[in-house]
Amino acid sequence: MVSATDQAYMKMALELARKGVGKTSPNPCVGAVLVKDGQVVGRGWHRRAGEPHAEINALAAAGDLAGGATIYVTLEPCNHQGRTPPCSKAIEAAGIRRVVYGMSDPNPVAGGGGAYLAGRGLEVLAGVLADDCRRLNLPFSKRVTTGYPWVQLKAAVSLDGRIAAATGRSKWITGEQARRQVHRLRCLSDAILVGSGTVLADDPSLTTRLPGKGRDPLRVILDSKLATPPAAKVVAHDSAAATWIFCGPDAAESKERQLRRPGVEVHRVGLEADGTLRLVEVLEHLGRAGVTTLLVEGGGRVHGSFLRRGLADEVIFFIAPLLLGGDGMAAVSELGLADPSQAPRLHEIERRRCGDDLMIRGRLRPLK
Amino acid sequence: MVSATDQAYMKMALELARKGVGKTSPNPCVGAVLVKDGQVVGRGWHRRAGEPHAEINALAAAGDLAGGATIYVTLEPCNHQGRTPPCSKAIEAAGIRRVVYGMSDPNPVAGGGGAYLAGRGLEVLAGVLADDCRRLNLPFSKRVTTGYPWVQLKAAVSLDGRIAAATGRSKWITGEQARRQVHRLRCLSDAILVGSGTVLADDPSLTTRLPGKGRDPLRVILDSKLATPPAAKVVAHDSAAATWIFCGPDAAESKERQLRRPGVEVHRVGLEADGTLRLVEVLEHLGRAGVTTLLVEGGGRVHGSFLRRGLADEVIFFIAPLLLGGDGMAAVSELGLADPSQAPRLHEIERRRCGDDLMIRGRLRPLK
Repeated sequence: MVSATDQAYMKMALELARKGVGKTSPNPCVGAVLVKDGQVVGRGWHRRAGEPHAEINALAAAGDLAGGATIYVTLEPCNHQGRTPPCSKAIEAAGIRRVVYGMSDPNPVAGGGGAYLAGRGLEVLAGVLADDCRRLNLPFSKRVTTGYPWVQLKAAVSLDGRIAAATGRSKWITGEQARRQVHRLRCLSDAILVGSGTVLADDPSLTTRLPGKGRDPLRVILDSKLATPPAAKVVAHDSAAATWIFCGPDAAESKERQLRRPGVEVHRVGLEADGTLRLVEVLEHLGRAGVTTLLVEGGGRVHGSFLRRGLADEVIFFIAPLLLGGDGMAAVSELGLADPSQAPRLHEIERRRCGDDLMIRGRLRPLK
Repeated sequence: MVSATDQAYMKMALELARKGVGKTSPNPCVGAVLVKDGQVVGRGWHRRAGEPHAEINALAAAGDLAGGATIYVTLEPCNHQGRTPPCSKAIEAAGIRRVVYGMSDPNPVAGGGGAYLAGRGLEVLAGVLADDCRRLNLPFSKRVTTGYPWVQLKAAVSLDGRIAAATGRSKWITGEQARRQVHRLRCLSDAILVGSGTVLADDPSLTTRLPGKGRDPLRVILDSKLATPPAAKVVAHDSAAATWIFCGPDAAESKERQLRRPGVEVHRVGLEADGTLRLVEVLEHLGRAGVTTLLVEGGGRVHGSFLRRGLADEVIFFIAPLLLGGDGMAAVSELGLADPSQAPRLHEIERRRCGDDLMIRGRLRPLK
């Protein structure tokens, strides 16, 4: 039975897990709390891939006090030898009596920790605040179950849904606060993706510009014909971030040679019937490289492609209080919908003011 | 000098004025408070055109206590004989000693009350909370100074700025709460305007559907070639609301005859170089008929025409958390902007949740 006490400690574990958001990829964010005789005797969270799991950190913090304690952990303890030994064995060895966890481990390779511990005689309670725990690790869950990263579509639009004037100019539709928020999103992403149209129109560097934040997401360009000029900032400018350019099977080898340099890779994938790149292949490539969260920054054709093929997971739109008119560039290309009831719709919507602009964010599917 | 006390009583007068919102057209909303020896001795507001002004109601409420009192009134007391006698004379006759008002009367015919009263020896203080008072009567001020009604552009859009799917279907983009809010807006308007494209696509009745609210705004159709079918609901359905159809000089007389019936009028106006109706003529017609607030409900071409000619005053967009794609119908037709810095931009923005949708509302010009 789930008691209010169990929920309260799980909330504490969730707060610890959140400290890892944006830092643990390709691993999940996990928090753990050890409780004995109504006292918290240890806390831990997973800080970074390659470092100890949350449970191990909490056990270390508790030391000898771990014996006979209850462990609260947001994710089912792993049961396999990865870069670190299995947490299930460590929990058993520490003499923990009761294990309470939030979500089951979606990773088919690492799962089974709960069953293992129950088999060793520990009391195991699963599913406490499971939905909250799942929301925290949707990108991780998606990647380990499908091989694809979690795909976020981001756009900065006018009230009438335009991402640029008819001339292609988009500086600036949204204000400074919204633009800063975009850099925060980039910091939380493993990769940023744009179409070659955006590279040609805006020549973005696609780096994060938050002072003191070291993360540099992989930069990904969809460019079926390799139209990206070798002088484009994403190619030519030195950066800690690598750039991957995806092109079609027939893109000119001479162009590929001009683009290749240290930190820049060109990958060939197949084409869809409509001549666009096969996005599932792109996502497979990225997932294999450990990309868990992919921020797609447009333009409209790229967003449309992801939406038409059902490959987007989340939408993040920054809406500016101005009107650009029907000759402006569309945020999303044609979707072929006959009726508004068929439209991709946001769930569990977050609304946030960013100066004069608004951020509207939601997942394209309800929580399963 | 403006004291905190003066401001507090003016706020009280503003609250009273607000009781008239949506009911006083073509007159302004006005509130008045009479104060004597630190006590409120009379309150009044203008309830409806043809009924007494706010000052007269406040004086009547105070009776004999008015002598020697201060009157706080949101709008400069009128100085002319309209449907009712001038308030300036009534204030003088009642023995008021001090007159504090918010905004000057923008009406060139009715103004001068402040100067008149000062000339008769009363102490007169103008401009207390003047901006708040002005915000309350922007439509009135516009009509009496320009002859045109205040123009509000309203649309229900997807996140990507579409008012219908490619098929023209728009039911329903926004949810019930947003749609109810639209009916409230209609109740506060003197007239609702749509283009003939909207009539042909949606066959709206353009009536207000709020139970117990009696107001039925004038229904206005822009229809340069008289494409509206005589069986359209706005024409054929009996309603307390009249319907005015504006067409170009060359629209077929036979079509005009088919549309004419009790409550339905056809007005001919000139054409712009691009073949659209001359909106300034439409606005002149409506202003002369006492239309102070005009709610323009689209479609995209109509909104675009108002915006291109600088004839819109306010934008009210309901944004639904879904995506309709670039083949959906645009909320605003082309504006020919080279750069986002030229875009019509909202001021003093109001943001309001309506269920899952958001209302974003703002004026297209700062307060003068």
